[in-house]
Amino acid sequence: MNTAVHSRVRVSLASRSYDVHIGSGNWEKLGPAIIESTRSEKVLVVTSPEIGRLYRRPVVKSLQGVGLKCKRIDIPDRDRNKNLRSVSRLYDAFLEAEADRSTVVLALGGGVIGDMAGFASATYLRGIPFIQVPTTLLAMVDASIGGKTGVNLRQGKNLVGSFHQPNLVWINLETLQSLPRAQVLAGFAEIIKHAVIWDRTHFRELEKTILNAVDLEPKVLSGIVRRSCEIKAEVVSKDENEQGLRMLLNFGHTIGHAIESLGKYKLLHGHCVAIGMVYAAERSAALGYASAKAVHRLRDLLERSGLPSELPRYPRRSYLDAIGVDKKRRGSKINFVVLERIGKAKTVPLSPMKVLPQSFLKR
Amino acid sequence: MNTAVHSRVRVSLASRSYDVHIGSGNWEKLGPAIIESTRSEKVLVVTSPEIGRLYRRPVVKSLQGVGLKCKRIDIPDRDRNKNLRSVSRLYDAFLEAEADRSTVVLALGGGVIGDMAGFASATYLRGIPFIQVPTTLLAMVDASIGGKTGVNLRQGKNLVGSFHQPNLVWINLETLQSLPRAQVLAGFAEIIKHAVIWDRTHFRELEKTILNAVDLEPKVLSGIVRRSCEIKAEVVSKDENEQGLRMLLNFGHTIGHAIESLGKYKLLHGHCVAIGMVYAAERSAALGYASAKAVHRLRDLLERSGLPSELPRYPRRSYLDAIGVDKKRRGSKINFVVLERIGKAKTVPLSPMKVLPQSFLKR
Repeated sequence: MNTAVHSRVRVSLASRSYDVHIGSGNWEKLGPAIIESTRSEKVLVVTSPEIGRLYRRPVVKSLQGVGLKCKRIDIPDRDRNKNLRSVSRLYDAFLEAEADRSTVVLALGGGVIGDMAGFASATYLRGIPFIQVPTTLLAMVDASIGGKTGVNLRQGKNLVGSFHQPNLVWINLETLQSLPRAQVLAGFAEIIKHAVIWDRTHFRELEKTILNAVDLEPKVLSGIVRRSCEIKAEVVSKDENEQGLRMLLNFGHTIGHAIESLGKYKLLHGHCVAIGMVYAAERSAALGYASAKAVHRLRDLLERSGLPSELPRYPRRSYLDAIGVDKKRRGSKINFVVLERIGKAKTVPLSPMKVLPQSFLKR
Repeated sequence: MNTAVHSRVRVSLASRSYDVHIGSGNWEKLGPAIIESTRSEKVLVVTSPEIGRLYRRPVVKSLQGVGLKCKRIDIPDRDRNKNLRSVSRLYDAFLEAEADRSTVVLALGGGVIGDMAGFASATYLRGIPFIQVPTTLLAMVDASIGGKTGVNLRQGKNLVGSFHQPNLVWINLETLQSLPRAQVLAGFAEIIKHAVIWDRTHFRELEKTILNAVDLEPKVLSGIVRRSCEIKAEVVSKDENEQGLRMLLNFGHTIGHAIESLGKYKLLHGHCVAIGMVYAAERSAALGYASAKAVHRLRDLLERSGLPSELPRYPRRSYLDAIGVDKKRRGSKINFVVLERIGKAKTVPLSPMKVLPQSFLKR
């Protein structure tokens, strides 16, 4: 497909600024871009056996073409492997490869690979350079930008991690052609989230083009991915360490995470976030923050893209437990992201009763 | 001893700036200082059983006196426990204590406690606030300032870690009264290092007062600790992430680390650094960077303080191995910190042959 225009989005973070490159069939330009963005001579390509089989060869060829030494490190990319044990294995592999502070770690894969390789590179020798090459739509528009890295503990997800910005994010849209449809849709949930909290023009664009977009029509897709990366980059640039603004990205995530957890992580994150966004929008309307029309437009866009919007019918008590409201903390507030209108959201501290009213699911 | 003046040294790092408080018998002021420097309501006091027995009670009393909730977490503080397993135990204890992003971790102990608690606080929930309360001289003037945290892997020391600046460093010189003499001297090795690389006036001061200082005479000691903290703070403020200037703090460490490793870590770090500094100064003179007189003054000060200065007689090949010069890398340079004169040092890339000439130990 090699025809799409190559574009770049800047993530502005003073000395930690970097570019997100968006293109298609652009493997051969990756090597030169690494030379431009790091002073490394050696690259450790961390990937899963499955992803590696698909893309390692053109990636390594591109890197070797500009004289970079490459070393491959395979690691399973299931979420249940995203733990400290896998990170220890990466440390061992880094040492085995004699990695030093000038060695760069390249994560080739989805969010699990990026999170683990990112955390290992954040902490090995107190931090070495890092490049994200996301191969899922979700990782492209969300996880690969912003420097969040981390792993799960048995007590919960993403409980351990670091902020460690990459030196470069490299997106090859061609990789999406091999991505299962459900995973593509999971990415669109975050794309729609970026639009609904930040950019009503982009939301309107999505309303027009969503059917072509989810079919991965190259021109439509590349414009949408680019704008979604821009939004993420803007938010992150203004609030690197999630002190305020960046919390808006949690829109739909309070209930989304609860659904994920209650479903024992069998549902995809993006699908849970889609449901969580509809719920958050409905609560926003019920509490007087948003109009019924805004809720309708959001639900409609998600449903047309093929994403779910109906809450699974677990008891209210289970939802409360899942969002961490135990008996002791019943009085304390939840930072809940409410929709104000299409393109605008804000964080408000709400009592659990306002997030999950007694009437919950009793309609 | 409650008489010494309370002073503070600022570590200037933009939004991550913090104060190092230096006093004696100053536990009761710690609680108010925490209220001033964090917005936390809950403090997790991480310490070893031994240190805890000595100081936990007055520390907790001070914290509770200002309404802070305290939770104690005991962890062994031997260097062989400074590993990922201990950090995992800390994560478990943090979760057990329901620590969130507003909870502060307080490390009460020497460098091992500070490094581990610091790394756990750097990575738990991608970073929570952290306070250093060093109880060894080495930790006071060196490890507690500058944000280096980390643990050992079985392949080597401090291979994993983060830069995570504390919100506050609290020094109570009274704690040194219970410190074994050898540990006090280990701290003086770093104090002398700070002076010799950075401040000839302070070096001259040490030449005059060293005997009183190593006897922990309160007034002499508090001035010396303060100046040593200032030097560390200055260097760190100018180079937070060890890109250049901060490498000067490695003076004496190339050979010092080799001695530690060859001695299977039975010698104290500070003692190895003392020997390494004399060696580095001698090489500096031999290579024309420093005068013989400077070498003499450094050796004399270290010896008068009671620190060793003679290289253990391992074969040259063992030293080369220990500093990581294997056959493949024989051609590459070592970043070696040379002394230029008392109060001034610089980093130069030297061939292994210049660091460890063939004539090594054949005198």
